[in-house]
Amino acid sequence: MSKRTEIGTLGEFGLIRHLTEKIELKNKGSIQGVGDDAAVLDYPDKQILVATDLLLEGIHFDLTYVPLKHLGYKSAIVNFSDIYAMNGQPKQITVSLGISKRFSVEDLDELYAGLNLACEMYGVDLVGGDTSASLTGLTISISCIGEGEKGKITYRSGAKDTDIVCVSGDLGAAYMGLQLLEREKRVFKDEENFTPDFDGKEYLLERQLKPEARKDVIESLANAGIQPTSMIDVSDGLSSELLHLSRAGQVGFRIYEDRIPIDFQTASMAEQFNMNLITAAMNGGEDYELLFTVPLAQHDAVSKLKGIHVIGHVTRAELGNYLIGRDGGEVELRAQGWNSLS
Amino acid sequence: MSKRTEIGTLGEFGLIRHLTEKIELKNKGSIQGVGDDAAVLDYPDKQILVATDLLLEGIHFDLTYVPLKHLGYKSAIVNFSDIYAMNGQPKQITVSLGISKRFSVEDLDELYAGLNLACEMYGVDLVGGDTSASLTGLTISISCIGEGEKGKITYRSGAKDTDIVCVSGDLGAAYMGLQLLEREKRVFKDEENFTPDFDGKEYLLERQLKPEARKDVIESLANAGIQPTSMIDVSDGLSSELLHLSRAGQVGFRIYEDRIPIDFQTASMAEQFNMNLITAAMNGGEDYELLFTVPLAQHDAVSKLKGIHVIGHVTRAELGNYLIGRDGGEVELRAQGWNSLS
Repeated sequence: MSKRTEIGTLGEFGLIRHLTEKIELKNKGSIQGVGDDAAVLDYPDKQILVATDLLLEGIHFDLTYVPLKHLGYKSAIVNFSDIYAMNGQPKQITVSLGISKRFSVEDLDELYAGLNLACEMYGVDLVGGDTSASLTGLTISISCIGEGEKGKITYRSGAKDTDIVCVSGDLGAAYMGLQLLEREKRVFKDEENFTPDFDGKEYLLERQLKPEARKDVIESLANAGIQPTSMIDVSDGLSSELLHLSRAGQVGFRIYEDRIPIDFQTASMAEQFNMNLITAAMNGGEDYELLFTVPLAQHDAVSKLKGIHVIGHVTRAELGNYLIGRDGGEVELRAQGWNSLS
Repeated sequence: MSKRTEIGTLGEFGLIRHLTEKIELKNKGSIQGVGDDAAVLDYPDKQILVATDLLLEGIHFDLTYVPLKHLGYKSAIVNFSDIYAMNGQPKQITVSLGISKRFSVEDLDELYAGLNLACEMYGVDLVGGDTSASLTGLTISISCIGEGEKGKITYRSGAKDTDIVCVSGDLGAAYMGLQLLEREKRVFKDEENFTPDFDGKEYLLERQLKPEARKDVIESLANAGIQPTSMIDVSDGLSSELLHLSRAGQVGFRIYEDRIPIDFQTASMAEQFNMNLITAAMNGGEDYELLFTVPLAQHDAVSKLKGIHVIGHVTRAELGNYLIGRDGGEVELRAQGWNSLS
């Protein structure tokens, strides 16, 4: 059995020191990290981006199948993704944890290993936070601070009639990964000596458990001289994000079903589960891909970029938001995105 | 009975819109508030301060006696206080909420009324956040962004041997207010037709339920041309904060019991409860006063400032941290501060 150190043996300040003492600040704009009343940052000549996400056990994650290291990694990534969606670069995060007695110091070491790995991979400094007891379960609150160049920050609101709509990567895989994990959990509960079989489904699990943020897409757009007119990351599902862009930009969208990028494993799993593949891709969420619009004149330039898919175009607002099926039929887009509050 | 609108009727995005649609940004550095993937801020020629606090129901607050509007106000204030403790000015906050089904839209309106009032009083913009379901109770996570002038930001680490130690306001009242509320709650549980009697204890309740952050102290120090060598806000109790300054600055402290500022109501309540008054003042916490050090040469200047008390002086680290009693006896300082993790 692995070692278990009770958190009470370190105390609040001891725990924070234990978790953060090895952190070295990488960015020259990170002047003061953990250990004072506030972090101190320097952003000369840049605008500052701030995103925040709250993750609650039992709502956003299930520790019966999510390893704590993966959870730490993903918690950081979802925040980085918000900054990339503004055409910015994440630079710092603060991490606040609420921790019940169930968790040991070693558990938190795992969580922090994931947070630190994500920070290392994306060039971000962990500069502050707060640690507290919790009556029930684990609470993770992360704020991410990033930089954007004045005039190059991309809002949700900039889409214009005749712009084309692009999305990176593929959609629906993280959702299918979640379905797979949920099914194995149910089977596991009923059967002793159960070994889950994830052969040929690795991509789905990776998309659910260890997603990446699309730093590479932001860089390849910049290298190609393409400035999106609007952008958002796909966290609640493509339909939901399109409706955000529609509302913010006062425009409509026409999206073509046969253009939606879907991985083979996603399609195969949907068939096996007897689920509607397009519903999963449109409403699944947690893809952390970038959805953006560019002027029609940049159609050829954007089409050449690896992993970027043109999926439709922008219309005037009064034409509404529609998915055009393979047979030419039109279905109005609705946000069936994951609504945790209803 | 007051109106109760279920949160599910609005949905996550509808709720965020409902809570934030009337917010008007006041600071010219707040470029984009709620409604995009990240807030956009502009801080030309300033350094940026970021503080964060996580508040959990049952750990940090008890809704049986804390009205939601007060809770919102206090949640913002404790973050502003962290920024003032760096000799900075808070400018923006982000607010993330985890909400169980127990709460209605009207409850959250109350919480936001308190948040908005605090923002208005202190010139801060609410620029973002996240709202999610929670399985149990209310979770509030706030990050505060502020500005500091390069070279004028005050860290915990700057205290020097022979500096004098100052604290604003008075100590122990918020802790006594908490004891009072806890007692009335216990009495209330045992008795029907019970009306709590808070006559002559209003100050204690105010300090616990509606604390203020010491923006005025930062301003009066600046006006007097006094730059503290180190500073921290008193959230966990004077002893605990002195030990932070001691560790960060590698210095010792000698604090004089007869110099500790204590309000009459605090003293009277301690007597009534048969509690040690100095323990309450040294370890009670939640005072949100500013504790700071200034060079000995500024003794006269700082003594003249209203509401600032000189309580001791800084020594070399090897002399340790001591409270000097009225009788000249010395007691080593220990952080008996509220340790929610043990």
